[in-house]
Amino acid sequence: MRRTIGVIGGLGPVATLDFFARVLKATPAAVDQDHIRLIIDNNPTVPERNAGIAGTGPSPAPALAKMARGLERAGADVLVMPCNAAHAFEADIRAATSLPFISLIEVTADAVAAVAPDAKRAGLLAVQGTISSGVYHKSLAARGVEVIAPEGEAMERLMAAIRRVKQGDTGAETRAAMEACAAELVALGADVLIAGCTEVPVVLDPDDVSVPLVSSTDVLVERTVAVAFGAAL
Amino acid sequence: MRRTIGVIGGLGPVATLDFFARVLKATPAAVDQDHIRLIIDNNPTVPERNAGIAGTGPSPAPALAKMARGLERAGADVLVMPCNAAHAFEADIRAATSLPFISLIEVTADAVAAVAPDAKRAGLLAVQGTISSGVYHKSLAARGVEVIAPEGEAMERLMAAIRRVKQGDTGAETRAAMEACAAELVALGADVLIAGCTEVPVVLDPDDVSVPLVSSTDVLVERTVAVAFGAAL
Repeated sequence: MRRTIGVIGGLGPVATLDFFARVLKATPAAVDQDHIRLIIDNNPTVPERNAGIAGTGPSPAPALAKMARGLERAGADVLVMPCNAAHAFEADIRAATSLPFISLIEVTADAVAAVAPDAKRAGLLAVQGTISSGVYHKSLAARGVEVIAPEGEAMERLMAAIRRVKQGDTGAETRAAMEACAAELVALGADVLIAGCTEVPVVLDPDDVSVPLVSSTDVLVERTVAVAFGAAL
Repeated sequence: MRRTIGVIGGLGPVATLDFFARVLKATPAAVDQDHIRLIIDNNPTVPERNAGIAGTGPSPAPALAKMARGLERAGADVLVMPCNAAHAFEADIRAATSLPFISLIEVTADAVAAVAPDAKRAGLLAVQGTISSGVYHKSLAARGVEVIAPEGEAMERLMAAIRRVKQGDTGAETRAAMEACAAELVALGADVLIAGCTEVPVVLDPDDVSVPLVSSTDVLVERTVAVAFGAAL
């Protein structure tokens, strides 16, 4: 069985492109026809997630629900969304369509438990909205893992690095800034790190950090390809 | 006015990814919300184009028509298709939907006339199906330009290089093979070259050749971004 994957994307576009590239790399394919079918709605007009979660801007929920329905009409069998923060609105997406939805947060929390079974504290490299919505705190608490997140100036530095990636800057300086954010969380006691923003693994590799790094993008890619080839949902 | 662009993609997936990446790079954007909306149907299951054109395999026309209708239902305002060979079935796509369709062949032929107004012979780096369907021959003849295409062993070497790109191999050897194919067409008298297969510009740059090189992908990208921002159709 082959399934068509609907991608709620554009949150932001660079992360969606990165997800698409990683899906192609992760698919064993000798000719075009061996690849999986993805229908990607790269919709950058969705209201900004951090402001929506904080209540200081419009909610992205109606736009996300509409995209889910559009992907269903276009022929998708399963939905994914390569954006951690937008998972604060997962319930709205699930309510809008009858399609199964693969939660990036749940598959990442599963991977943390698998990669670092003795971990007590996960350092979360994520945007403010993902942290304050508590999606990872809840999911990891259920697995006995506490979340350590950047605060104050450390948070501002991380947000600045993420904004640079969104603008297409993946150069050495942006990489060094992201690495410094990761090192700070390790210094605070994190024994595993989560790249919990799809812009983070664009410029941060496992080799750049001293503890296991779980890339939410890679975990979602792996699960997406497996489900496209018929893995149980 | 902003328009949503529907992308008939997956022909092949690597070229669709390349098109998406180039659209992002070509869009002036400071934040996510400045980017354009693309709905990409990356459908690699469309029957192989060369065999379809030669009549030795099933026609891709029904699948392409279905994709066009699906993209219309998903909310696209305009359709593009980053695959030269599939333009042999352009009439089937236009017949399937009421949406405007930007022809990659026409915008490329316009660019050849603009970049090399005195050109007499355009060297066409394209797959067998694109060449034998005559889409470029017709479009360029209308602008007074003759097409020179690889034949025999030269064609086989070009097809081999394109297949390598489709498999994700964009290394030095593949680049050198593509450059050699381009040099052969110049030796045969081409005074302008067309990267007339979306896999070609993935590994061939203007600096690699001695005459002007028109990348059908870049031309389509430029036109796509302009139309998304409201340019007249």
